[in-house]
Amino acid sequence: MIEQEFSSTLLDNAVNELSRLPGIGRKTALRLALYLLRQDTEMSTSIARAITDMRQGIRYCRRCHNISETEICPICSSPGRDETTICVVENIKDVLAFERTGLYHGLYHVLGGVISPIDGVGPDQLQIDSLVTRVMAGGINEVILATGATMEGETTNFYIFRRLADSGVKITQLARGVAVGNELEYIDEVTLGRSLSGRTLFDSPI
Amino acid sequence: MIEQEFSSTLLDNAVNELSRLPGIGRKTALRLALYLLRQDTEMSTSIARAITDMRQGIRYCRRCHNISETEICPICSSPGRDETTICVVENIKDVLAFERTGLYHGLYHVLGGVISPIDGVGPDQLQIDSLVTRVMAGGINEVILATGATMEGETTNFYIFRRLADSGVKITQLARGVAVGNELEYIDEVTLGRSLSGRTLFDSPI
Repeated sequence: MIEQEFSSTLLDNAVNELSRLPGIGRKTALRLALYLLRQDTEMSTSIARAITDMRQGIRYCRRCHNISETEICPICSSPGRDETTICVVENIKDVLAFERTGLYHGLYHVLGGVISPIDGVGPDQLQIDSLVTRVMAGGINEVILATGATMEGETTNFYIFRRLADSGVKITQLARGVAVGNELEYIDEVTLGRSLSGRTLFDSPI
Repeated sequence: MIEQEFSSTLLDNAVNELSRLPGIGRKTALRLALYLLRQDTEMSTSIARAITDMRQGIRYCRRCHNISETEICPICSSPGRDETTICVVENIKDVLAFERTGLYHGLYHVLGGVISPIDGVGPDQLQIDSLVTRVMAGGINEVILATGATMEGETTNFYIFRRLADSGVKITQLARGVAVGNELEYIDEVTLGRSLSGRTLFDSPI
């Protein structure tokens, strides 16, 4: 790294720090820094405060490992949610995606990733043991395996399925098929094949 | 704006603040925030500190309006620079670009933009008066007009040229022509025309 690239150590430092963020290279970092310099000091301080407050204030729910400001997250502690259903997802963004549908009212379990030997991620690095403990403790009727439809996601689903096989709990997975709005001609043959074998009774929209 | 989008006010707040930066939408802001959550607290605090330190510590050189940590910037106060030549540029990035060439040893004058009636930028919003004062004070041999080769840049150059016409100082502009590495067939006719009318004596590279 060049020691004094921009004739100001403060600017150098800000560019170095901003370019540590993913997807932000040195050019973008410089653009952001120069933008902040043109704005009121208030903007820089409030962005800085929001970042540190978030990092220091947010922890993970002891039960489902979703982000939370309290020991148990608002979803886990909500009396309105169905406590007998657990939706197993890869990460926090997936929780947000399900919440946006407005159709899911059960609880979650955030794995923190998927099994991927190539990236050195085995079952031990994920929150799988805690899921098994949670299910074995009883009171659960259904576990929905909802990792991504990738090779790693399917492997993870299968591994969890095996671990929970003796639990007697119903284990389901997300339907695979044609995405809403897609033209058939552009769909890969694996997806199309699974949409065929998983076909459902026609449900008249009217 | 949705009041509580991510089930955590701290995350909400960080996403809101990060998406105030140019080119960073809510999706990117969320990605950055979740990335920061996965890293050590040290990363968030050092990014935050770098931003606030920069914003609070950097001011503008009283003479050339380049960014500086001192009242007069390192370039203006350097004994090694040619004090008789001023290169007039639009913004700080242009100073950095010239410094990277390693070929310019004079001083700068940062206008802070170009004359652009459409954007409501007139000569009064730019550091043009202070340039005229600087030149009229004497001791300057050459003023290089180095704004971008845009309509607005050329207008600004012409305006400055008129303001400095009586000064007796040599006023030059950057050569317009074929960019190094470019194929002729892809060059617009205005550039090609100017590269022809501004042709120079062949200078053997060997």
